Amino acid sequence: MHTNTTVNGIDVEALKKVAGEVAEDPTKGMVGFRVTSHWAGGTKTQSTVNGYTMAGREIEKSFQIEADEPQELLGENTAPNPQELLMAAFNSCMMVGYIAGAAMEGINLEKCEIHTEGELDLRGFLGLDNQVRPGYEHLRYTVTIKGDGTAEQFEAIHQNVIRTSPNRWNLANDIRLESRLITEPADFST
Amino acid sequence: MHTNTTVNGIDVEALKKVAGEVAEDPTKGMVGFRVTSHWAGGTKTQSTVNGYTMAGREIEKSFQIEADEPQELLGENTAPNPQELLMAAFNSCMMVGYIAGAAMEGINLEKCEIHTEGELDLRGFLGLDNQVRPGYEHLRYTVTIKGDGTAEQFEAIHQNVIRTSPNRWNLANDIRLESRLITEPADFST
Repeated sequence: MHTNTTVNGIDVEALKKVAGEVAEDPTKGMVGFRVTSHWAGGTKTQSTVNGYTMAGREIEKSFQIEADEPQELLGENTAPNPQELLMAAFNSCMMVGYIAGAAMEGINLEKCEIHTEGELDLRGFLGLDNQVRPGYEHLRYTVTIKGDGTAEQFEAIHQNVIRTSPNRWNLANDIRLESRLITEPADFST
Repeated sequence: MHTNTTVNGIDVEALKKVAGEVAEDPTKGMVGFRVTSHWAGGTKTQSTVNGYTMAGREIEKSFQIEADEPQELLGENTAPNPQELLMAAFNSCMMVGYIAGAAMEGINLEKCEIHTEGELDLRGFLGLDNQVRPGYEHLRYTVTIKGDGTAEQFEAIHQNVIRTSPNRWNLANDIRLESRLITEPADFST
């Protein structure tokens, strides 16, 4: 269908069309995501994705995402833990930026790999010291990209991902979090 | 083994032991996470977890985390997308806080559910407007918790999770991101 416009598996004409439509009418680029997570015993969580909205239109999808802590952190190690999911979210979002960015430039890629690492000080999570942040002070990541672009082209794509990746932005900047707590009494009596 | 100290599937004595050890020697609470992600064609990423470090000790684990964009965002919809992974990371991290916090208070839970939602303006990702942030301005989440605690106890746990959840902190605050780009020439000639 669009074989002549597909680079790195990205339909470049379709991408340009989306960008053109959003530029003309920004409401077409409003995308709403949602995830519902259920406690599955111990440190296990099962998260469910059942759809998202784009330009106000509901689009169904259906995925499960499991999380668990390793045994040393009191879990059963049945799934990646929340920190690993966060890094996967970070890497995979930037990945789309590198791949689409290269496609827009007509650069054919053979490989793109992103390795991320960071350290947590558990005194934060355990509430042992108010001066210790529970999260990351910094994360380090290395992007290895291989293809028929020049070093200058890859550097320009790299800088563009730094400017435009949603999840990179979400970690690099502060997001306002609005919470609501609903409590329900137990069915059983103790 | 520890049935008499297990609440909500959390071994409370083991948790107190970890907290005591970390309080005594903070190096025991230094935990290093890492994820390596490979481009898997189009908007698909496969992330691999092969281990983590705790107090400098390497502990093996092995998990894969898939990501893809839905068709409307130029993917093949084979997996949750990076935004959904981020929300699952956020929810599952807070979940551990609610469950462990309740366990420490001897509160037996029947249910804990966290629903998170947020909107992105694609003009940011598409680089159409420098004034539009690529990420979330805010996220809304609702926690529904059911068990034999009082409303006041649950509210105290809720506030504690706000203070101590690593991934909540990671989204609510800015993290310094250090990147390195490695470029490799293509094997093929075009």
